[in-house]
Amino acid sequence: MFWWIAYSGEPKFLDELLFKPEHSLIDQSLSARSSVTPTNGDGFGIGRYSERETPGIYRNFRPAWNDRNLRDLAEQIRSHLFLAHVRAATGTAVQQTNCHPFRFGKWLFVRNGVIHGFREMKRDLVQEVSPELYPSIEGTTDSEVMFFLALTLGLEDDPLAATARMAHLVEQVGRAHGVEEALTLTLGISDGKRVFGIRYASDGSPRTLFHSRDMCALKELNPKIDRFSDDARAVVSEPFGTLSESWVEIPPSSAVIIDGAKLETREFHPSSPH
Amino acid sequence: MFWWIAYSGEPKFLDELLFKPEHSLIDQSLSARSSVTPTNGDGFGIGRYSERETPGIYRNFRPAWNDRNLRDLAEQIRSHLFLAHVRAATGTAVQQTNCHPFRFGKWLFVRNGVIHGFREMKRDLVQEVSPELYPSIEGTTDSEVMFFLALTLGLEDDPLAATARMAHLVEQVGRAHGVEEALTLTLGISDGKRVFGIRYASDGSPRTLFHSRDMCALKELNPKIDRFSDDARAVVSEPFGTLSESWVEIPPSSAVIIDGAKLETREFHPSSPH
Amino acid sequence: MFWWIAYSGEPKFLDELLFKPEHSLIDQSLSARSSVTPTNGDGFGIGRYSERETPGIYRNFRPAWNDRNLRDLAEQIRSHLFLAHVRAATGTAVQQTNCHPFRFGKWLFVRNGVIHGFREMKRDLVQEVSPELYPSIEGTTDSEVMFFLALTLGLEDDPLAATARMAHLVEQVGRAHGVEEALTLTLGISDGKRVFGIRYASDGSPRTLFHSRDMCALKELNPKIDRFSDDARAVVSEPFGTLSESWVEIPPSSAVIIDGAKLETREFHPSSPH
Amino acid sequence: MFWWIAYSGEPKFLDELLFKPEHSLIDQSLSARSSVTPTNGDGFGIGRYSERETPGIYRNFRPAWNDRNLRDLAEQIRSHLFLAHVRAATGTAVQQTNCHPFRFGKWLFVRNGVIHGFREMKRDLVQEVSPELYPSIEGTTDSEVMFFLALTLGLEDDPLAATARMAHLVEQVGRAHGVEEALTLTLGISDGKRVFGIRYASDGSPRTLFHSRDMCALKELNPKIDRFSDDARAVVSEPFGTLSESWVEIPPSSAVIIDGAKLETREFHPSSPH
Repeated sequence: MFWWIAYSGEPKFLDELLFKPEHSLIDQSLSARSSVTPTNGDGFGIGRYSERETPGIYRNFRPAWNDRNLRDLAEQIRSHLFLAHVRAATGTAVQQTNCHPFRFGKWLFVRNGVIHGFREMKRDLVQEVSPELYPSIEGTTDSEVMFFLALTLGLEDDPLAATARMAHLVEQVGRAHGVEEALTLTLGISDGKRVFGIRYASDGSPRTLFHSRDMCALKELNPKIDRFSDDARAVVSEPFGTLSESWVEIPPSSAVIIDGAKLETREFHPSSPH
Repeated sequence: MFWWIAYSGEPKFLDELLFKPEHSLIDQSLSARSSVTPTNGDGFGIGRYSERETPGIYRNFRPAWNDRNLRDLAEQIRSHLFLAHVRAATGTAVQQTNCHPFRFGKWLFVRNGVIHGFREMKRDLVQEVSPELYPSIEGTTDSEVMFFLALTLGLEDDPLAATARMAHLVEQVGRAHGVEEALTLTLGISDGKRVFGIRYASDGSPRTLFHSRDMCALKELNPKIDRFSDDARAVVSEPFGTLSESWVEIPPSSAVIIDGAKLETREFHPSSPH
Repeated sequence: MFWWIAYSGEPKFLDELLFKPEHSLIDQSLSARSSVTPTNGDGFGIGRYSERETPGIYRNFRPAWNDRNLRDLAEQIRSHLFLAHVRAATGTAVQQTNCHPFRFGKWLFVRNGVIHGFREMKRDLVQEVSPELYPSIEGTTDSEVMFFLALTLGLEDDPLAATARMAHLVEQVGRAHGVEEALTLTLGISDGKRVFGIRYASDGSPRTLFHSRDMCALKELNPKIDRFSDDARAVVSEPFGTLSESWVEIPPSSAVIIDGAKLETREFHPSSPH
Repeated sequence: MFWWIAYSGEPKFLDELLFKPEHSLIDQSLSARSSVTPTNGDGFGIGRYSERETPGIYRNFRPAWNDRNLRDLAEQIRSHLFLAHVRAATGTAVQQTNCHPFRFGKWLFVRNGVIHGFREMKRDLVQEVSPELYPSIEGTTDSEVMFFLALTLGLEDDPLAATARMAHLVEQVGRAHGVEEALTLTLGISDGKRVFGIRYASDGSPRTLFHSRDMCALKELNPKIDRFSDDARAVVSEPFGTLSESWVEIPPSSAVIIDGAKLETREFHPSSPH
């Protein structure tokens, strides 16, 4: 079980949203309240956009809460759009290349969830990655395979459509391996301008996903921040601390697209790639 | 808050006692039940005696539960006397040299507890370490300073007496810094033959410490082990899983000495070094 | 460029052969003399057989020369058959799962060399790994893929024949990708009883490989060791220090099989799997 | 033996000066040409000033050349004043807290060199650190002790005078331990505005230190950079690649002060603190 957040808005120092709040992301990594796995101590990562088109990523296999470099970077780096992720490994190795976010060109990708039966399906899934993209796979997680499948199926042109095709493909390969409902996920995807948040599960019961309704929601991330810009938005895989009405649950089988001040919700259903 | 175990008896593979039981030490490191700090993910160490007089130690700053080398070593290494420790850092850096056990010659040392006000007292305490021993200090924890103070005060000749002197010294320096009850600890010390378990706190309320009453207690460590030798003994800082009558609580201000099949309990009180 | 050694004979503490000699393996990792890459600081591993059929492995992504746990383990662990390997990464990530030796059941596998054009060929090569074995691949190196191809092609029944088939397959896939001479390697393989050392390159000019002629060769590994057993043998990918006549160069396109005191040399040529 | 660089001038991305040049700092870390220790693979650090008064530091115990986070950070971070350092450990543990730069408030400190006999002198030296500063010592190196001694002796008011007092003190304690010529060093110190480069050895033969004469020197750091600002300056502990006349050797027993476009050279001699 993982934990992630995406922020888009006026540039903020990362530590203002990741470390300072009482029930911060990093805090959560020590003892996630609503998670199945008790502790998210198997690595973390942050990806953020600043001056260059390619986002920067910092990933480490150690617990987020005891990484001094992370704390220091979060104090120094200001970004208008960033994603952060903490990991609780569920079988694959605890190493940097297995930490989220994954990056390809200007794209970032984080995920919470599992592919049921991935160990058995992996070989078939990986064969669907295009030969051009295949060499860029660096780790061994199901998340990274999903990212490269979505890239193969057109993520750079239409992230939601490509992800829907990827979901279809994974479920199809799952059934071929006798797994009826292979997929459960919440996804965060960005190109540096937009944030896509997707919530879906084959069995209709995905993990949680929320977006901020207004500035009050953001102030719950860190009450000490005086103001957020009008276009500031956040997506979180689990609410920080107590859930208030300022956070809107993204319904199962749906997605949000955040593009500056605009927030749009759409249905999300797997669709055949062909 | 830390967690430790000492085992003495017929040689066992380390994984039989550290990984296999349902509520194993490694398990506990993920979510210690009665600890103040929720997770012990800031490093661990094992020290064990085998063919050579000097014990071997393996320490790492990452969580015990995701270290594959640890798992592998525990499967391969058999020892008649070993100590294991998991760490939840409380201020000092998460690095190998701050992990327990600490070693000097044939001696191993693990600790659970704190010195209240250590940050302010450290300079004065360290000055009490003998010039010959001083250069061997490698880390920055209060535990290691306590070990080197005890070594300075005669640990190699009489571990309990030297530890009592060390406790006196720490309380004395504490009072000089306005800390009335500086010390709370459980200690595990060994020379490869004997195991010393000490439980003490300046305010009379130290953390827990238990020793096994009989083979039934040891079988609770791992029910799948058919038999333990008659002289097998264990000391644990917290009971594994539910506490049964097979585990004997070591009273506050007391110590146990395990020497083969013999187990002796003594009072433990700080005593002036002079 | 990597560096490896295999030892078979009377049990020795690992540090006697890895750390103590003046131009030791670990020493070599700091400044390999005849290597293309100047320093082998991108991880290392040791695999050794002792009481259990499954060998133990200890691998780390940091430089061998500054890993205290390695030094400590080498002092404590005694083995009658072990392999050690130091790594200089040539593109794939520096992480534990990419360190040699690779292990499957009772088998260990180390390699020096490269597959030219591996990045482009990888997808096709990996598809040849059997579906049963595929999920056990943990890292991202060409070496591990070669190991799993050889396992797919019968390594557990006949290591040399399976490796010859694997070599054929790699060269075939290479040619399909426009790489005429894809392979250059020295391989060390063991099942805990026998050591297989293979030297081969598609272009006829593989990297070096040597075996000990007699006890004098072994004493060059560590002059302070008084005696080696009559059946003691070593294979090294590069000679320690100055090369003496006590070390026999294994010719290109050939292999040695060490089985206790017996040492046999055979020709080695790629052969079609079909 | 270590290696360091300081840059002051128009903001540059760190990778432009650390990774891009053919004989870059990171390159040097793999095989330093004029160093005593062949490889600087025992950690590294970068410290840089940007929006906040407190500089950011990123330090790691692994080799600089294989740290992907470092490469990524260097691509994203732009700074008008930064220091970078690579380490070859000479006895003390390879861990983050022993990596340079050391930081206190707005001050950064890097060093190349040794204190001869430090192991024996350490206890006496550390006692000279003021009780207020003592708790901030995090590692175990002689470099950090020197930094805290200089802080104790007034570094924040007058860096050169405080360093001269520190040098005097170290030589004095050295002589008390029978070490006639204890010190050899090159130091880089900064407060975010000025860079201080100091070259000194008790025996008159310190390690090398250079500063850039003009923009041509800087362009040798990376020929692909079109232009440097007029006030751009660099100090390097060893020349990159071949030494040209664009680099000026800082004489033994002297220091440079860079303050924007101004560069001043002064004599540097140990002076009694009293």
